[in-house]
Amino acid sequence: MIKVLRLNHRRERDKRITTHVALAARALGADEFILTGDNDSKVLENIRGVVDRFGGDFQAYHSSSWRKEIEKFSGIIVHLTMYGERVQDVIGDIRKEKDVMLVVGGAKVPSEVYEISDYNIAVTNQPHSEVSSVAIFLDHYHLSKELEMSFPGGEMRINPSKSGKDVINL
Amino acid sequence: MIKVLRLNHRRERDKRITTHVALAARALGADEFILTGDNDSKVLENIRGVVDRFGGDFQAYHSSSWRKEIEKFSGIIVHLTMYGERVQDVIGDIRKEKDVMLVVGGAKVPSEVYEISDYNIAVTNQPHSEVSSVAIFLDHYHLSKELEMSFPGGEMRINPSKSGKDVINL
Repeated sequence: MIKVLRLNHRRERDKRITTHVALAARALGADEFILTGDNDSKVLENIRGVVDRFGGDFQAYHSSSWRKEIEKFSGIIVHLTMYGERVQDVIGDIRKEKDVMLVVGGAKVPSEVYEISDYNIAVTNQPHSEVSSVAIFLDHYHLSKELEMSFPGGEMRINPSKSGKDVINL
Repeated sequence: MIKVLRLNHRRERDKRITTHVALAARALGADEFILTGDNDSKVLENIRGVVDRFGGDFQAYHSSSWRKEIEKFSGIIVHLTMYGERVQDVIGDIRKEKDVMLVVGGAKVPSEVYEISDYNIAVTNQPHSEVSSVAIFLDHYHLSKELEMSFPGGEMRINPSKSGKDVINL
């Protein structure tokens, strides 16, 4: 079970980035997305709409307390931050864990998040994006096997195509 | 030489996603970012500000014509799209090429882009994000060696840390 928890979502400013974090999490083999900060029903509806159309059973919901979500989670907590240890140095250990919660900032991450997490992990120690950090983490965690994953159900499927759009309506 | 070309940037709507695409490109081993669509000086200044502070010689600039940029590029053109061939099936061939332009949509990608490109490539055939697609593509292209890359110059460096922020001012 891999959960991705988004810290401190701000409705206007973060709506697209947060949606992209959640969709990247879904596409690359996470099971759940927990939105904290603003309870943004539009973002959650967007994500659920993708699940309805493209399949799988990815869950997305809001929680009023990131702390409570972290405390009740029984697996390990991995906080993604540009200040952390290098992903390539610790992913082998993390991969042994079946239950992982990825915690993703957010403007101004409270120092408590660094302390409460089992790992603080950087995908490069350069500034880039929550979206790319989640993506690279998941791809390394799954040894790229998530790229072979199928998403049962849904309303449509895309067949890979060299030259255009090949969409099957189910 | 790896260039990333962003199609049809829209100043208000896309400013953060486009910035994240460019920063992910820089952090994960691309050399240049070409903005097409709106000539958004704030986005370009943000990217250049990161280069000034964190080093390396990543270039970012606007072009009024994506078509001209593609036509004058002497390497291969790889269009990232959820409809394309699976990245894991073709990355081995693409990796043999030294000069690659990654083309990234954009709302409503013109069908000409599919035709003019040497490869139309999908990172999963699921909807997620330009940011995660660029990231996974670059990481697979570089066989993750870009994670070891250093960025000479700049004003600061982050030392990987298990527990907090370790920033060196140069």
